[in-house]
Amino acid sequence: MEINVGLIGLGTVGTGVVRVLRENADVIGDRLGCRLVLKRIADRDIERDRGIKLDKGVLVRDAEEVLNDPEIQIVIELVGGTGVAREFVMKALEKGKHVVTANKALLSTHGREIFSRAMELGRDIGFEASVGGGIPVIKALREGLVANRVESIYGIINGTANYILSKMTNDGGRFEDVLKRAQEKGYAEADPTYDVEGIDTAHKLAILINLSYGTYISLEDIYTEGISRIDQLDIKFAREFGYRIKLLAIAKEAGGKVEARVHPTMIPASHPLASVDGAYNAVHIQGNAVGSVMLYGLGAGMMPTASAVVADVVDICRNLARGVSNRVSPLSYEAGAIREVEVKRIDTLELPYYLRFQAMDKPGVLSSISGVLGKHNISISNVIQKGRKVGGAVPVVIVTHNAVERELQAAVAEIEKLDTIQERVIFLRIEERLGTSN
Amino acid sequence: MEINVGLIGLGTVGTGVVRVLRENADVIGDRLGCRLVLKRIADRDIERDRGIKLDKGVLVRDAEEVLNDPEIQIVIELVGGTGVAREFVMKALEKGKHVVTANKALLSTHGREIFSRAMELGRDIGFEASVGGGIPVIKALREGLVANRVESIYGIINGTANYILSKMTNDGGRFEDVLKRAQEKGYAEADPTYDVEGIDTAHKLAILINLSYGTYISLEDIYTEGISRIDQLDIKFAREFGYRIKLLAIAKEAGGKVEARVHPTMIPASHPLASVDGAYNAVHIQGNAVGSVMLYGLGAGMMPTASAVVADVVDICRNLARGVSNRVSPLSYEAGAIREVEVKRIDTLELPYYLRFQAMDKPGVLSSISGVLGKHNISISNVIQKGRKVGGAVPVVIVTHNAVERELQAAVAEIEKLDTIQERVIFLRIEERLGTSN
Repeated sequence: MEINVGLIGLGTVGTGVVRVLRENADVIGDRLGCRLVLKRIADRDIERDRGIKLDKGVLVRDAEEVLNDPEIQIVIELVGGTGVAREFVMKALEKGKHVVTANKALLSTHGREIFSRAMELGRDIGFEASVGGGIPVIKALREGLVANRVESIYGIINGTANYILSKMTNDGGRFEDVLKRAQEKGYAEADPTYDVEGIDTAHKLAILINLSYGTYISLEDIYTEGISRIDQLDIKFAREFGYRIKLLAIAKEAGGKVEARVHPTMIPASHPLASVDGAYNAVHIQGNAVGSVMLYGLGAGMMPTASAVVADVVDICRNLARGVSNRVSPLSYEAGAIREVEVKRIDTLELPYYLRFQAMDKPGVLSSISGVLGKHNISISNVIQKGRKVGGAVPVVIVTHNAVERELQAAVAEIEKLDTIQERVIFLRIEERLGTSN
Repeated sequence: MEINVGLIGLGTVGTGVVRVLRENADVIGDRLGCRLVLKRIADRDIERDRGIKLDKGVLVRDAEEVLNDPEIQIVIELVGGTGVAREFVMKALEKGKHVVTANKALLSTHGREIFSRAMELGRDIGFEASVGGGIPVIKALREGLVANRVESIYGIINGTANYILSKMTNDGGRFEDVLKRAQEKGYAEADPTYDVEGIDTAHKLAILINLSYGTYISLEDIYTEGISRIDQLDIKFAREFGYRIKLLAIAKEAGGKVEARVHPTMIPASHPLASVDGAYNAVHIQGNAVGSVMLYGLGAGMMPTASAVVADVVDICRNLARGVSNRVSPLSYEAGAIREVEVKRIDTLELPYYLRFQAMDKPGVLSSISGVLGKHNISISNVIQKGRKVGGAVPVVIVTHNAVERELQAAVAEIEKLDTIQERVIFLRIEERLGTSN
């Protein structure tokens, strides 16, 4: 038995898919029991040398040649973005094809439309590669942990941001300089906004939340803050308090409300997530039965991402071989069970916070800061005030006990108005527990 | 739609299964679209209070009442061992039932018979809970990483052994004392042999190898060495060299041969596996496409293991709902692709080694030791000789460069005969790389 597959978008990941299907053809065949044939590949650029040899006629310019080929049963969409990719995916479904995609922007924005249509039409849609590259985290949530209520998810799911923060932590350096070196090495895009401002992380978090709670969260409901304001000073102070700073995607469920947020977060240095460095990704899931589970691996790159894409293709082939589809619904929730979830507002969060002030080194400064904090019901757990500059500004760092974010924001605004305080106040959220792990 | 499930063995995990099915009934129902009914439970002890309420008539003494009930479509075997459990599983298959089991001893010993029969009869068999408790590692190997050749697996897959080694590392203490405390706390069995001598780990490694390479490895082909000889001294020296000692299950494939071994291993302290402490398990998989992937979580316990059992039940129900079975074959390899693999003999290993001698503190001792090593083509990378006892014995520790185990064993035997050497020589294998991770 042969199954014909079409691919739209022959970029880095697409090239990886060609290579995995070719280099691992025997082991895939041994497991699947049938042969996967990459029948046609569409890309606007059919000239570029990608280091792979394709049979004549396989690579074409027009995606329609993939979408309209009646022999192609599975279409892999690797165009990216929410424009033509959406059209290609919808058209593939309408044309009777199952779809595999790595497109987190598309699924986090148009997931409801795409998944609903796939279910109506009885098509499968695989998207393992959309979160965490090669890490089988979608399968874990859809199937492996299916018997759990998901209590929380903490994810390091953007390799670029994690690379930059790890470099700043391990080797020092300013954000701008580390970013520049990452760009030179190809670890960051020329326009790094999506990665460093947390947007890509928020897209992926939306997918994880939708899978965990059977919903379609709106991206606007995910509080999103990037790492571009992280200063080397904060990284050093974090270390002194026994923390590391990571850009985390966070989802937590309690009392029917879901927290959904992306921001640089201080976490205990001893937590397994704290040592996830460089381009590695990790997703820490707390289930009410399983307890803490963490999945770790390369979150991007040609071959890891292709590994996930081909796993989805094999999954669909195993359905095709048995003549079934929609064996697992896209979100692993039946259509009738999909519901709205209430998202907890960021200003109602209750967490410990890290605050850094540039304060004039004068008597009474700490007293006025702590006075404002006290007025807002914020109690202090730790203070560091270092250095002495006669008449100059010194950093004052405070770690609070649990405080309500609304109060904290109000206190910060008030403190910024004190005439002993220079520059904006930096504050970072601290996650002390992250599930019950270790 | 309702699906009737039967359970044989109402011990800790069985009780967890009852609880998970009950406590998470809505979320499981929302995902599965049908109701799971635990129709009958068999256990020899029907009197004991397990803290759960069962409807009258559900709990019975005789497993036959589960096996012969035509309404039961899925049988969960949680009896353990290779005796009656084997009969129950085979009979369930013959009677038309699909099977879920957590029984690593059974599957590593009789896997060929059970899996072959299940395939012939078109029954599904789920065994996620047999390795790594709640961690979805079987699903990762069977499905999530299906597009990869597995280059290596390094697993911490026995919670008892890991708990003891972690305690010895973090809090000090002799093996015997730490074991005794672990027994008092219920973390170790009264007879701890299976756990501390690596036998349980070898059973689980056999399952991981069978899944990775589509084979049925014989347990005798897995070199198995436990942790009962690990001394606090070795743990301290390991730390000085930047290592940690872990009981690892190791599989590596190269040139058509597979390494299959379980032994205490020195690994770099910076590797993610090194910080897997206490009762936690982790499996680090190196795939030729995905690179390094690590899965981490609780490897045992009532609720985590039950999470895996129920995930398998849901998986089978999703097949039942579509009227299919054997969608994925037990080892994720088609019957015709199952083959023998050649296992690399332990004495042909090539690794760096850690050696500890109790040597008389006399001139020329180190020279005679290194002379013997040199004769066997073993070169030294590091030496520590500490303390001075006039006329007494002091520990001498040597870390070698890569050496062939056969040569090393011969050198050790020769060194033990030197009259300056007291006690047996301790040696430990060092894994420097563990895939390409970090």
